[in-house]
Order: sequence, then C-alpha cells, then structure tokens
Amino acid sequence: MSQLRKDPISNSWVIISNERGKRPSDFGAVRPQRKRSFCPFCEGNESVTPAEIRAIRKAGTEANQKGWDIRVIPNKFAVLRVEGEIDKQAEGGLYDVMNGIGAHEVIIEHPDHNLDLDDFTDEHRTNLLQIIQERINDLHKDLRLRYVQIFKNYGEIAGASLEHPHSQLIATPVVPLRIKSGLLAAQYHYKRKQRCLFCDMYRYEMKTKIRLIHTTKHFIAFAPFASRFPFEICIMPKKHRAEFTQVPLEELKDLSIILRIILMALRITLTDPPYNMILNNAPNLLSKPSKWQNIQEDFHWHIEIIPRLTKMAGFEWGTGFYINPTPPEEAANYLREVIIPNDLLRNG
Amino acid sequence: MSQLRKDPISNSWVIISNERGKRPSDFGAVRPQRKRSFCPFCEGNESVTPAEIRAIRKAGTEANQKGWDIRVIPNKFAVLRVEGEIDKQAEGGLYDVMNGIGAHEVIIEHPDHNLDLDDFTDEHRTNLLQIIQERINDLHKDLRLRYVQIFKNYGEIAGASLEHPHSQLIATPVVPLRIKSGLLAAQYHYKRKQRCLFCDMYRYEMKTKIRLIHTTKHFIAFAPFASRFPFEICIMPKKHRAEFTQVPLEELKDLSIILRIILMALRITLTDPPYNMILNNAPNLLSKPSKWQNIQEDFHWHIEIIPRLTKMAGFEWGTGFYINPTPPEEAANYLREVIIPNDLLRNG
Repeated sequence: MSQLRKDPISNSWVIISNERGKRPSDFGAVRPQRKRSFCPFCEGNESVTPAEIRAIRKAGTEANQKGWDIRVIPNKFAVLRVEGEIDKQAEGGLYDVMNGIGAHEVIIEHPDHNLDLDDFTDEHRTNLLQIIQERINDLHKDLRLRYVQIFKNYGEIAGASLEHPHSQLIATPVVPLRIKSGLLAAQYHYKRKQRCLFCDMYRYEMKTKIRLIHTTKHFIAFAPFASRFPFEICIMPKKHRAEFTQVPLEELKDLSIILRIILMALRITLTDPPYNMILNNAPNLLSKPSKWQNIQEDFHWHIEIIPRLTKMAGFEWGTGFYINPTPPEEAANYLREVIIPNDLLRNG
Repeated sequence: MSQLRKDPISNSWVIISNERGKRPSDFGAVRPQRKRSFCPFCEGNESVTPAEIRAIRKAGTEANQKGWDIRVIPNKFAVLRVEGEIDKQAEGGLYDVMNGIGAHEVIIEHPDHNLDLDDFTDEHRTNLLQIIQERINDLHKDLRLRYVQIFKNYGEIAGASLEHPHSQLIATPVVPLRIKSGLLAAQYHYKRKQRCLFCDMYRYEMKTKIRLIHTTKHFIAFAPFASRFPFEICIMPKKHRAEFTQVPLEELKDLSIILRIILMALRITLTDPPYNMILNNAPNLLSKPSKWQNIQEDFHWHIEIIPRLTKMAGFEWGTGFYINPTPPEEAANYLREVIIPNDLLRNG
C-alpha cells in the first residue's frame, strides 16, 4: 500500500507510491550527447558575454580575457535587474505588482566545456563555493534584495539552455513564499522544542540510517522522508548555521568532497540524469532584521538535489501533492551501494 | 523591464519577463503523431481494464462490454485506494505518515481514440461534466475523503501516459495545502470586504478586458493577472458557487461550449500544445463542516488550464516563484484573435 508522508519543512504531503515502485533502470534517463556548437561560456569567447562581475584568474591575465578558472557575469537575458527604484502598485486595488528589481547572474564554473561539477578537482569546487559566498555577501549589501537564490540546472530537461558547466543566482526584492513557509515551520518547531528542526532531522537520519546516503566530517547526505521526487537528496551541514555565507573554509572543503561523492553516485546510479540543485539559505538578514529576529537559531542552511525523472502533471499542479514512485529508503540504498569507500574517493 | 506580480489566490509572486517576450511560434510546440499501438481504453478492450464504476451506455449494452459513450474505471495503477482504514502515525516523533487511503479513477471520455476533448459534440462534453459531478458526489459520501481532484493531462509532456482521451480523479484523505491556502486567501478577502475574491477577479477582468479571452452567458475565460505559465487560462463561472457539483444542467451546457472554444483557440494558437486542466473545487463539505463553515460564501469553483511550454528549473523549485516569458495580456490577445465569432461556433 502506498503512503502519505508530510514534509516537516513545507508541511506538504507526498504520496510514496511503492506499488509503482521504480528502480533506477526504470527511468531510462540517458543524457543526450553533447553538441559542440558555439558556446558563449567557453574560454576565448569572453567578448560575447556581459563584462565579468568577479573571476578567479591566473596571475597576469586581464578581466574579460582568457585565463580564468571561475567567472561570474550578469545573465544576458536577466529576468530581474538592479537598475532603477522599487515601485510597488496595485492594479484595480486587487492585484499587487512591483517592477522587476533584483539581480540575475551566471556563475561559469569552469573553463572546460566538457567537465561537470563532480569532475572538477576538490580545490576548484571549493573555490566555486567561496565565490558563491562572496556573491551573496555582496548582493546582501543592497538592502532592497531580500533573498538570493543560488541554483544549478543540469541537462536540458532540468532547464539548462547551455550545457557548459554553470550555476545561476537570482536575487529577489521579496522573500519568496516557499522560503517564508520553511522559516515559519522552523520557527514553530524551535518555539515548541527549543531545538532546530533541521538539526532534529539530520540527527534522526544519522541515527536510523535507513535514508542515510553518506556522511563526511561536517556534512550528511540523506534522502528526505517525504521526498517529492525519486532520488531526491538533501545535503545538510552538521554544524547549525542559518547562513551559508558563515561557513568557514575548512567546512567548504568538506562540502566540496561530499558534493563530488553524491553527484558521482547520482550519475552512476541513474545514468547521468538531469537535475536541479538548490541552495536553501537564510534571507538577507541585513534588510529586515526585526522580522527575522530569531532566524539564527530557527533556520539551518542546506542543499537540495532534485533529479528530474518524473513529470509534473495535473494532480501535482492542482493540489501541490507530489507522487513519488521510489520510496526514499530504496533510493538511499541504491545510492549508498555505488559510493566507493571514502578513502579511495578522497584521493580522487 | 520585467514585473513581479502577486497572485491573489496563492499569494505567490510571478516574474513576468517581457524582455524574454515569447510569441506562440517561439515555443515550437508540435504534438507528436499518434501511435496506434494497443490501447486499453479503446472500445472493445474493456476486458483488460478494471470493471467500470459508472458508464453512459447505448440502450441494451452490458457493463464492461462495447457500446459505451463515457466510462469510469478505477486506475489500474492507483496511487491511493479506498480499501482499509486510515492509520496515522509519526516516525521518530518528527515525521507524519498516513497509509494511502483515497481513490484514483480514470474517466475515459470517449470511445474514439483519435478525438480530443474539443472534438466531441457539445452534448457529449456536457454528459462528461455530469458524470464528473456524479463521481464527486459519490466520493464525498465517504467522509474519510476530504478532497476530490479532477484533472486532465493532455500530451506526453503534460504527463499523459496514454493518448486516448481521458481525465483522472484522485481523492485524498487530507485537504491539500494548495487548496487550503486558496481557501484562506478567499476567507481573508471575504472577511475584509464581504465580497468573494473570485467574483471580484472575474468582474474586474470583464470590465478591463485586457486579459479577457472569451465570455459566454454563464462563464468567462481570462488569462490570470499573475499567470505562472505562458498562455495559462482561467475559466470562471459568473454565478457564485463553492461547489462544482451544484452547477445546474443549463450552465453545464454553457461550460461545454466555452471549453470547446477555449481548447480550440489554444490548439490553433500553439499548434496543439500539451496541457494540464484542473478543476478547483471546494473540499468535501460533508466531512468537516465546522472548519469550512463559511466556504459557501468564501470560495468560488473554477477551472485552470496550463499549457506546458516552459520547464520548471532550479529557481522555481527553490523559491516557488515562476518566470513567465509571455505577459498574460499578450497571451489573451493571441487567443482572442483566433476565436471565431460565437454564432459560428455554436452551430459547430
């Protein structure tokens, strides 16, 4: 019989339909071969992109020229832009509207078109994580920006229009409802128990191990209890912190390692599936400190990885319920099995 | 410059990105040719489906044999089932879980594999709407079932695994969060203004006409102010009613007409796009009358049509924000243009 499970962060229900029980091979996700047409993100094509905001460069190279390792540029087709003043209006007294103030940047992760996030050296990925911290800190200085969403779309099905390894950043002038709901759930849990909801979750997963995928010194990767999608993964830091930007270098190095291990496991288990990766971070605490007073205790930053193997359909749109044909306990099992012993990987 | 718009029902923000302005031809949605492999929903194959729950049949034909016009069957791969007792538990005091009680039915809309919902005669579609009313009423008698979601997935991208014209029904033992949020928004509006939020919306759209697509005697079709998706359409009854099951035959006949007009307009404008259609109805008022006391005033049933032209990506999953590259005013314009004068269609 299938189960209904409630996610403690979103309070949404998920149907875990083990009668439709799907194994990795049932999804048949095979990533299409890379096309090598002109790529604006490749080294040597810097002139066709907007000027870089930030880059890690080899000594002696100039901005917007060859010689970079990681490069941050404004999105050429930005959905939100920093220029202008926020203007809030109501249409017909019924509908709220605001002009599109915000930011939309592309983080080109590597000069090599053919590498993926888990192919980079651990050091390169650590640098990338540091650049992300920098960009968030920089954007938080603009008090109009209430939330910075970092995300990665991998593969066309997951919404990537260019295949060159890249992540994106969109800063919004409001705290999105999904973030607010998560904050409220965390706040409610803390008020009742004087404990962090996320700390409770990761400790429970560490203890029971049934949904545990991998742990490193500072991080844990597990399949969430109410996974909306087959092979959904949560990476959570063991150290309680609301803000990703506060993570010290030593822990970033460890995050770089668990990211590699988990993405490799996903690639092997599901034949290089399309996925979305999302950084769930605290909102900009500089912009509205009073409203989020207790957020340092309530919230706990974490990463979500969503392989895109199933389709959203009418039921999901109508109800917000998700139907997941792979119980997270089984998904965790499959992923655990392909993870080669830590020692071996650490030398990789 | 793009705009942020807030949907008054869900309170979610949408980015209307007219800098990416997309016309119908930009989506290039062309429905793949129908494959004529074995279809369990075709007339003559009744023996391979579960026994029918309800059917409209030609006089003298027997259940689960040829001779039906519309046929309702249990979904062979049901995600929820009516058998058993509801059993609620908590895992580790942290996670809520419930066994999968509910219902999952398929409404085979027509014996002809090759017809679509807008190809049927107006009378046939009216019969279909009546059957849906009957099924909801029947399931509401089971007080464990709190919400009945009727939905249609059209085309593979929209989640249809079989191409034979059909809709589905899933009844859940909880009122989904999306429905609750909508009810709360409607309740809040009614308390402040003593008016229905949905009545306010459709009257405003009737008056301003900028997002209006079509009206009939009893219905209005418009592009929602904060459309999450390009060419999203809302069909709303002019008569305030919380429950679709209360709609009298005369209005159902009119709904059948506007459905045909709108689906045809969508098909012509976007080259037969995949879509999801959702009936937004009141929850089962028999099951928890006290909690939804004022729902008859607060809520107003309606239909959503979501063409599936864009992809959900990391930003959408992370924030719940949507990015819509086609302003609803433009979408309404395109759809209005292809609607042939009413008189002509009424004789169709």
